[in-house]
Amino acid sequence: MRYQLYYWPEIQGRGEFVRLALEDAGASYEDVARKTGGTGKMMAMMNGREKRPPFAPPFLKAGKLVIAQVAEILFYLGPRLKLAPRAEADRLWLHQLQLTVTEFVAEIHDTHHPLGSSLYYEDAKPEAKRYTENFLAERAPKYLGYFETVLAKSKGPYLVGRRASYVDLSVFQLIEGLRYAFPKAMRRIERDVPGLVAVRDAVAARPGIKKYLASPRRIPFNESGIFRRYPELDR
Amino acid sequence: MRYQLYYWPEIQGRGEFVRLALEDAGASYEDVARKTGGTGKMMAMMNGREKRPPFAPPFLKAGKLVIAQVAEILFYLGPRLKLAPRAEADRLWLHQLQLTVTEFVAEIHDTHHPLGSSLYYEDAKPEAKRYTENFLAERAPKYLGYFETVLAKSKGPYLVGRRASYVDLSVFQLIEGLRYAFPKAMRRIERDVPGLVAVRDAVAARPGIKKYLASPRRIPFNESGIFRRYPELDR
Repeated sequence: MRYQLYYWPEIQGRGEFVRLALEDAGASYEDVARKTGGTGKMMAMMNGREKRPPFAPPFLKAGKLVIAQVAEILFYLGPRLKLAPRAEADRLWLHQLQLTVTEFVAEIHDTHHPLGSSLYYEDAKPEAKRYTENFLAERAPKYLGYFETVLAKSKGPYLVGRRASYVDLSVFQLIEGLRYAFPKAMRRIERDVPGLVAVRDAVAARPGIKKYLASPRRIPFNESGIFRRYPELDR
Repeated sequence: MRYQLYYWPEIQGRGEFVRLALEDAGASYEDVARKTGGTGKMMAMMNGREKRPPFAPPFLKAGKLVIAQVAEILFYLGPRLKLAPRAEADRLWLHQLQLTVTEFVAEIHDTHHPLGSSLYYEDAKPEAKRYTENFLAERAPKYLGYFETVLAKSKGPYLVGRRASYVDLSVFQLIEGLRYAFPKAMRRIERDVPGLVAVRDAVAARPGIKKYLASPRRIPFNESGIFRRYPELDR
């Protein structure tokens, strides 16, 4: 199966969680919007005659199926890419963890856009500072601490046990992104989640991921994505 | 199967989307935290020896399974309560819609808490006003307009066609809640989504829902839940 991924071409953003799974598995896929005319195709699928139109990118075309929402795309791809167990209870547990990643990602986004995405960052800077202060003191440690607990209970080395899953790839991306956005705060926060840092390292060493990170397909972090480096927010 | 629902006892909140599905289907369930000592039991499951601890309420116990995240609980319950089709593609489509409901609910919550849940509403009132202005002008019409389009494409009378699903129950709850929180704005916004209003009316007339709404099990809306009536936010 050759997959087609639809996502904004200039950022890692939410699409990156899907890209990492496809790349780790060495799956055959096309990153549609990164080709000439691709963004237009993507918009047409959202606003056109599609009988089941996605609300927003990313979405994945797999044969006739069009699937949106990162967590759902990974739920679908997981067993097919050998990045998820097959038993229903295990798949639901993994999906539940990914939905918690989704909530965390939304809060990370809000560090630079607490009053909504329609404003420029510069137009709500004091609010971003207030939001981020609480985010770095309470929320980020709470989410990461939760995943650290999950890892400890599974006995590792991966979040759901002996085999790597798409949730481990997402944890890698969370740590990479948070290090990019908040290097100072992360030095402090990481001390309490050594297990997750080890997961990050193990994922970075996986052959598919290593190759991907060194390729031009990996878009560098930038200030249009989810993880943005605004030094004034990093305490 | 007798289900056990774990959720905060004083609010509708996110748990209400699950309650509506259980009630519509006439399922046997216990609303654990609404009984003496129940909240303590709920906290213990999150912080205790559970091998797969939920991050936050609501969560559902179904036999040995513990499932968290509203959209995932409904994904699991859907076919079991006859509130979802059984084919994989259809179930994924329904889940995708519910995940969009989830995002919408998070933005509704942020109208009164744009800078995070740890502050009192009173401590970020000007920010709540700025956030809500954009929410009522852009975001709420965008989400509701999307669901109106989905309904039109399915040819109705329900969001995915001829049979009611858990997503229709969620649309009912969204409209009820938005009417409670923003009665003025909703009079204007509803004009553009007559199909959804008809879904709301059809759901309100379903026997299980009608009985539930008239019972003491339906907690009234209040200013601790997702939908809060702060007249200064309603333009």
